[in-house]
Amino acid sequence: MGYPVIVMGDFVRMEAEKRGLKPNAENLGKLMLEIRKEKGEDVVAKLTVEAVKKTNSPIVFIDGVRSLKEVEEFKRNFEDFRLIAVHAPEKVRFKRVSRRLRSDDVSVMEKFKERDLRELKVGIGDVIALADRIIENIGSKEEFKSKVRKVLGEIAHEALS
Amino acid sequence: MGYPVIVMGDFVRMEAEKRGLKPNAENLGKLMLEIRKEKGEDVVAKLTVEAVKKTNSPIVFIDGVRSLKEVEEFKRNFEDFRLIAVHAPEKVRFKRVSRRLRSDDVSVMEKFKERDLRELKVGIGDVIALADRIIENIGSKEEFKSKVRKVLGEIAHEALS
Repeated sequence: MGYPVIVMGDFVRMEAEKRGLKPNAENLGKLMLEIRKEKGEDVVAKLTVEAVKKTNSPIVFIDGVRSLKEVEEFKRNFEDFRLIAVHAPEKVRFKRVSRRLRSDDVSVMEKFKERDLRELKVGIGDVIALADRIIENIGSKEEFKSKVRKVLGEIAHEALS
Repeated sequence: MGYPVIVMGDFVRMEAEKRGLKPNAENLGKLMLEIRKEKGEDVVAKLTVEAVKKTNSPIVFIDGVRSLKEVEEFKRNFEDFRLIAVHAPEKVRFKRVSRRLRSDDVSVMEKFKERDLRELKVGIGDVIALADRIIENIGSKEEFKSKVRKVLGEIAHEALS
């Protein structure tokens, strides 16, 4: 749709590069927790706010919110902040990951569950619970795209009325 | 739709009556935490499982799941357990509560936020994150009813295929 997207995980990926870590899901997940401990829970959110302001765009998408602390940081900085959760059940997400990795052995399932628990610990469940909108992503990519367009249209309509 | 519904909060309400407490939202919320501390996090889930089994119905609705511990208890007992989250954003839920109470003064907002945090602490966010389906309840009652019917139809279809 032409709007800028800030991917919060990119800041973690950059930090992994600095530290000479391989950017696999496990390393990035652990580093995400480490950075938060070292520099505060909202460190990535603060970097994101700077990046958003630099775009000078009236609409910016932020990808990868994980905790209510981050949501607070965004609300403090952006008057018209809207929180949209994208949701798929465990089964569907696991199927997609196995297909992507072309593997469904036990170790993949274990790593998958570990990652889920890590993200729940950071507070992603609370973020979903307090979202403004939730979009289920359980069907095809095309179905999902059309749902996203519908929800964004509704938000724009609401903001203008 | 004619299926039995077990309301988990009813067990807390019964306990409040036993203890001579007024069944208002605040007392029930606190008692919910107390009972869990006294008798274990899944005490209400266990009472619910018994009640579900007594119905002898092939389909039973359970209302009021609050934590992953409870979800585990249901999965252990019911092979075809499906977790459906009903979601509305804070703003919408607050508007509904104020309308119901015919009041929107500050103390209502404070109590409302307190209740939200209490339920997040029990783990309702994690339950929503790991739900099989999420139904947004942001429009009219009729819209919601038709969405529920659609989702239940899809689940039945999936179960039969």
